[in-house]
Amino acid sequence: MSFLAKHVKLYEKERSPLRAFFGGLMRTIDWDERKHSVLMIDQRRLPEKLEIFQADTAERMIEAIQTMVIRGAPALGVAGAFTVALAALELRNTSDPDWFTKLEQAAITIKSSRPTAVNLAWGVNRVMSIPGLLEESIEVAAEAMLNEALSMAEEDINTNIKLARNGSTLINDGDVLMHHCNTGALAAVDWGTALGAIRFAHESGKKVKVLIDETRPRLQGARLTAWECEQYGIPYEIITDNAAGYFLQRGEVDAVFFGADRVAANGDVVNKIGTYMLSLAANANKVPVYCVFPKSSVDLSIATGKDIIIEEREPDEVLGISFMGERVAPTSAHARNPAFDLTPHELISAWVTEDGVIYPPFSGTFQ
Amino acid sequence: MSFLAKHVKLYEKERSPLRAFFGGLMRTIDWDERKHSVLMIDQRRLPEKLEIFQADTAERMIEAIQTMVIRGAPALGVAGAFTVALAALELRNTSDPDWFTKLEQAAITIKSSRPTAVNLAWGVNRVMSIPGLLEESIEVAAEAMLNEALSMAEEDINTNIKLARNGSTLINDGDVLMHHCNTGALAAVDWGTALGAIRFAHESGKKVKVLIDETRPRLQGARLTAWECEQYGIPYEIITDNAAGYFLQRGEVDAVFFGADRVAANGDVVNKIGTYMLSLAANANKVPVYCVFPKSSVDLSIATGKDIIIEEREPDEVLGISFMGERVAPTSAHARNPAFDLTPHELISAWVTEDGVIYPPFSGTFQ
Repeated sequence: MSFLAKHVKLYEKERSPLRAFFGGLMRTIDWDERKHSVLMIDQRRLPEKLEIFQADTAERMIEAIQTMVIRGAPALGVAGAFTVALAALELRNTSDPDWFTKLEQAAITIKSSRPTAVNLAWGVNRVMSIPGLLEESIEVAAEAMLNEALSMAEEDINTNIKLARNGSTLINDGDVLMHHCNTGALAAVDWGTALGAIRFAHESGKKVKVLIDETRPRLQGARLTAWECEQYGIPYEIITDNAAGYFLQRGEVDAVFFGADRVAANGDVVNKIGTYMLSLAANANKVPVYCVFPKSSVDLSIATGKDIIIEEREPDEVLGISFMGERVAPTSAHARNPAFDLTPHELISAWVTEDGVIYPPFSGTFQ
Repeated sequence: MSFLAKHVKLYEKERSPLRAFFGGLMRTIDWDERKHSVLMIDQRRLPEKLEIFQADTAERMIEAIQTMVIRGAPALGVAGAFTVALAALELRNTSDPDWFTKLEQAAITIKSSRPTAVNLAWGVNRVMSIPGLLEESIEVAAEAMLNEALSMAEEDINTNIKLARNGSTLINDGDVLMHHCNTGALAAVDWGTALGAIRFAHESGKKVKVLIDETRPRLQGARLTAWECEQYGIPYEIITDNAAGYFLQRGEVDAVFFGADRVAANGDVVNKIGTYMLSLAANANKVPVYCVFPKSSVDLSIATGKDIIIEEREPDEVLGISFMGERVAPTSAHARNPAFDLTPHELISAWVTEDGVIYPPFSGTFQ
C-alpha cells in the first residue's frame, strides 16, 4: 500500500526528487500502512526541499491542513477523508462506547479547519456517510473508513485525468496560457485540475507556454507551479500578479486557466485571491477564461458566490516576506489577508469538469 | 543650503528619523553646498533603515536612479536636473572647450537611464534649455544650471502642495481610500501626489483610512507608503495586490488613488505595473479612480498611451524575494518584469494637477 515509503527510499538512493515524485510513482498525499499514518509532501518547503510530513493523528492532520503542508481543493478532499479515518483509528484504541458522537464532533472540527474549500467538507462527509457505519463496532467502522479514504485517493487521480483531458481540448498548439495559483499534481493526489489540462496538452504534443503569476500572498505560482512546469518540461515565465493585465492587454495570452475552491449553483467561482482581478482583465481584452475543477467542488446548496464564506488568514502571510534580503513592511504594520475571492459567472467562458466542458449558462447543469 | 546635513545631525541626536524627515525639515532629495553633492534618502533601505545616499558625480546619480535609491515621477524630475547640473560641474573642472557637446551627450545618457517616466527627461531638458547657456563660459553655465535645479526642487514642493490640496477635495470625511505604489513625500522632494492628497485631507481633519496595496515587484506600497502613513498618523492596512478586487467588490472602498509616470495627450496613464488591473476592478464596482500628477508628467507629444515605451526591469525583482525565510522560485526560474502598464483614459474618473481637477474628457485640456 505504501507507494511513498518505497519511493522516498528511491529518492534517497538516486538523489533525484523529480524522478521519485512524478509519473505516478509518488503522490502528494498517501497512506503508509506500516506506520498507520498519512504521508504528504510538505509544500511549505518547496521548491527548496522535498520533505515528507507524517501525520499519525487527526490533530496533526489538522495542523498540516491549516499550515498548508497540503493545499489545493482536490487534495483537501482526500486529506479530509484521511483525517476523519485517523480520528476513527484513534477512537478504536480508546474503546469508547460513545465513539460515533465523538467522531461526529471530530468531523465538525476537521471541516472548519479551512472553511472555504468545499472539498474538505465533501471528503469528511463522504467517509462519515458510509452506509451502516453506526451499526458496526468501532473496529470495523475505522477499517471501512480508511478503505473509503484510500478509494477516494484512487478516484481523485482518475477524475483528474478526465478533467485534464477535457481541459486540454480548449488548448491549441502554440498557445500561451496564463495560470493562477497552483492547480497541478501538488493540488491533488496527482495531475490536478487547470495545470493538469496544460500538462495533458503538453504531453499530447501541443507546444504551449505558461505565464505563471506568482500568486501572492503564499506564492503558490512561483513556488509550486513553476517547480511542476520544470519537472514536466513545459516552458514558463513567472510574472507578478500585477503584470497579468499588461500581457493580456498586449494580446500575448491565448487563454487564462485556474481551478476552483467552491463553485456555486449559478457558476460563480470562489478561488484563490486574485482570480477575480485576473478574470476582469482577461474579459476586458476578450481572452477566454477557463475554470477547471472536479464536480466535488460544486456546492448546489449555495445559490450564488456571495453566500460563500471567505477565509481571512494570518497577516504574516502578507508581511512576512523579504525583498533583496530586507524586511518589507514597518514592524508595526497592519495587514488584511483574504485568501479567496469571488469571480461572478459572467466572467467565465467555460467550466471544465470530469464530465466535459460546460459553456454558459452553468446554472442547471447539475440539478 | 544644506537642510539635510543639519537634520541628519538632528536625527543622530534625537534618535528619531521621523521628526527629522517630515514637516519639511528634511527632503527626499537635496543639495549639499559644502560637499557639492546631491543627498538622497536611500529608498532601498526603508523601512528598516533611514540612510543617506550621497552622489557627487553624474555617474553616481545615474546609479542612484537606476537602482531606485530615488524613484517616483516628481522626484525623478528633480533628480534629472541635479544630475545634468553635476555633469556640468564636472566639465568645469576639465576646462574642456567642447563642453556643450559633452553636456548634450551626458543629457541623453541621463534621460535614457529610466525611459518611462517623462519627468526625468523633463527635468534634464529644462536645465539644458536655460536661455543663453551656450553663450556663457562653462563656469557660469554650471552655476546657472545648479541654480535652476535648486529652483526646481523648491517649485516641486509648491506644485505638490497645490496638487495635494486639489486632490483632497475629492476625499470625504470617513472615506476608505485604496492606494497603489508610493506617491508620497518619498516620490517627490516633499508631499508627493496621490498620497499627498490623502495626507492633505488627513491634516485638514478628515478621517480617512488607506488600504495600501503592496505593489509587487518592488513593494513600494508595503515598504514606503506604509512607512509614510505611520509618520503622518494615517490609519492604514496593507493588502496584497491580488486582494484589491475583493475589497472593491464588497463595497469597502470609496475611491482609488494613484500617480502617473507619463500621461498621454488623450489622458491615457502609464503608471506602476498593476495600475491597470486595479482600475479595471474599481470600474467594475463603480468606485471612482483618481490619478494625481504634476503637469510635467503630461507628454503632449504622445497621442495615446499605446505609444509609450514600457521599461522591463531585471527578473530578479520578481524572483528575489523570500517567503517565511525560504527562497520562492526554482533557482533556474525565468521571469518577465514590465515595470509599468497602461490605463486607458476611459477607466479614469478624474485627473488632478496643480491647476485643479479635470473631469473627462481629458483630451484638449493642455492644448
